[in-house]
Amino acid sequence: MFNFDFYNPTRIFFGKDRLENIDKNIPADAKVLITFGGGSAKKNGLIDKVKANLGNRKVVEFGGIEPNPRYETLMKAAEIVRNKNIDFIMAVGGGSVIDGTKFICLASFYKGDAYDLLKYGSAQITSKVVEKVVPFGVVLTLPAAGSEMNMGAVISSEEGKFPVMSALTFPKFSILDPTYTFTLPKIQVANGVVDTFVHTTEQYITFPVDAKIQDRIAEGILQTLIEISETTIAEPENYDARANLVWSATMALNGIIGTGVPQDWTTHMIGHELTALFGIDHGQTLAIIYPALLEVRRVQKQAKLLQYAERVWHIQNGSAEEKIDLAIQKTREFFESLGIKTRLSQYGVTSDKIPVIVEQLKIHGLTALSETQDITLDISQKILEKAM
Amino acid sequence: MFNFDFYNPTRIFFGKDRLENIDKNIPADAKVLITFGGGSAKKNGLIDKVKANLGNRKVVEFGGIEPNPRYETLMKAAEIVRNKNIDFIMAVGGGSVIDGTKFICLASFYKGDAYDLLKYGSAQITSKVVEKVVPFGVVLTLPAAGSEMNMGAVISSEEGKFPVMSALTFPKFSILDPTYTFTLPKIQVANGVVDTFVHTTEQYITFPVDAKIQDRIAEGILQTLIEISETTIAEPENYDARANLVWSATMALNGIIGTGVPQDWTTHMIGHELTALFGIDHGQTLAIIYPALLEVRRVQKQAKLLQYAERVWHIQNGSAEEKIDLAIQKTREFFESLGIKTRLSQYGVTSDKIPVIVEQLKIHGLTALSETQDITLDISQKILEKAM
Repeated sequence: MFNFDFYNPTRIFFGKDRLENIDKNIPADAKVLITFGGGSAKKNGLIDKVKANLGNRKVVEFGGIEPNPRYETLMKAAEIVRNKNIDFIMAVGGGSVIDGTKFICLASFYKGDAYDLLKYGSAQITSKVVEKVVPFGVVLTLPAAGSEMNMGAVISSEEGKFPVMSALTFPKFSILDPTYTFTLPKIQVANGVVDTFVHTTEQYITFPVDAKIQDRIAEGILQTLIEISETTIAEPENYDARANLVWSATMALNGIIGTGVPQDWTTHMIGHELTALFGIDHGQTLAIIYPALLEVRRVQKQAKLLQYAERVWHIQNGSAEEKIDLAIQKTREFFESLGIKTRLSQYGVTSDKIPVIVEQLKIHGLTALSETQDITLDISQKILEKAM
Repeated sequence: MFNFDFYNPTRIFFGKDRLENIDKNIPADAKVLITFGGGSAKKNGLIDKVKANLGNRKVVEFGGIEPNPRYETLMKAAEIVRNKNIDFIMAVGGGSVIDGTKFICLASFYKGDAYDLLKYGSAQITSKVVEKVVPFGVVLTLPAAGSEMNMGAVISSEEGKFPVMSALTFPKFSILDPTYTFTLPKIQVANGVVDTFVHTTEQYITFPVDAKIQDRIAEGILQTLIEISETTIAEPENYDARANLVWSATMALNGIIGTGVPQDWTTHMIGHELTALFGIDHGQTLAIIYPALLEVRRVQKQAKLLQYAERVWHIQNGSAEEKIDLAIQKTREFFESLGIKTRLSQYGVTSDKIPVIVEQLKIHGLTALSETQDITLDISQKILEKAM
């Protein structure tokens, strides 16, 4: 096991009817900005419920944070925070709204050019250069990104998608009420399952370091997703299935399974380029890239792929290579069983676009990806070819 | 899954050579009290290393916190905190030293009679009545209690053992260096394995609420303990085995596996009386009571016992009753394989003492134990009879 640091101070209020915790966890005199997305939380009444739980506090609303939240949009909210003397932000939404809110919190009182926050990457640098942040809480409406219990965000600009991290941007609290996700479109639930699955495998299918607990938890999340996905897509109001999906999504990216283990994240990095270039949903990009990546990296990942085959898919017979073949096939079939296509060509992207994608990876400095930093642009190109 | 709250702000620094984090995480002008136990940390040089990492800060030492830390001892430390203007405490030890330090932190500036802190029980009450606590950090030397990453403590007085809890007593940080546990006597390691095992089962073998992730993590911890225990006892300096034990012990009681599930704790409550009355080690008391409790509660716990049999012990054949029989038998054999006897009579306690133990449970108000609060004194007596 590698040495590791772990810290996660976000308070979780999980279950039905937890909105009263908004009032209990925000200063009584706070002026609150509510951030949300395209308006479904507004239409279905959730924003009104959040406001009702803010009592007499002054409230300002900022809607319209888009999927893959954009720098320009978020800077408008940061201006409101400054001009209206906002003390606290309530993010109501999924990963995009929460990620966007994290950026608003960092940018509002940042003294330099806020665009630079997209370029720092590491949490250490960002935490050092930002002196003051606005604290924020979350009401989650979409189980996928895990942003409700971590310090990370992915922010888009015309230059691409950028990871932004800081120990200052853990939510103060997150309300995870599975019933708020009942009205999600099926495709968003399916994307959330894939996102959670690949968050887990990025921290699990690497090389073995004898981190037994972390492996077991990762395998537990993967098995749970395999068990519940059909039910939670077909029966959105099945509370237990959805509760297990919500908690899986949070647990997959709250730092616990990443303690002391190597991490890959190649699939996310290549996937981000597909979203930026072609507008393909984040979950879909992962379903496209991941099976292809496993094919290309089956030698480097052999030991963990075998463990994955045996423990997650219960494949006991055949040679090592046969087990790995079947595990990769089952991974692809699992994504497709959710209604998500796993070939780039099925999204209208033709093979002549591969050099364009690789060029973007180059521009973004993503020339040494993976748990061993040895996925060069040539290897990324091979992964993309396999993904056609 | 039940509704739940989760909050755990303790920073973990895990692995080799992490003591530099003491200096980084304590105010530069703090006056520090170092608390420790019987002196092994003093003799083997660990206290000196901790002091070296405190730089120029003023340091006071308080050794001699005993196993099952006693109120009277801890009150002496609280007096030192007040008289010497201590700002921060560094606990160096295992569960007893950490538990004791939590009590010192609560008691030092408590305005009422500190003995009352033993009686409040609930975290809510304790957090409300205590206005000021001394913050503290931990250097762990014994993987067992899990106290290094939670807010709970068990404190002894002449009246018995009392759970003390408060959101104010999470460690600010805990340094978990498996190498500091290499010199532990084998029996303490074995006791730590049992303690971790039963911490896990108290939150797992109850009744099913479809909390799939929590179940998988609990099963992961149990399987890990079964895999590593022989190695980590026989080869104390096998780093990976010991690192997995240390992280298992922490993960078993940091709140994660207890989210949204029923919890039992009967074995701990009866076990505390055995320690208080007969001085039997905490881990040993659990090994005595737990197999007997499973026998007596096999009907109420049937569904989870079957799951435990199948997933943890991989018992696939036989009737439900046969699987449960074998799982209980394997649990007992596991404890005994660690060198820990599982019968009360093997510790010199004769059956005429059972009424004495039951009387203590009555005095302490423990008349409705278990996940369903239906273990009466009569049922506790049956468990004790089975444990002879």
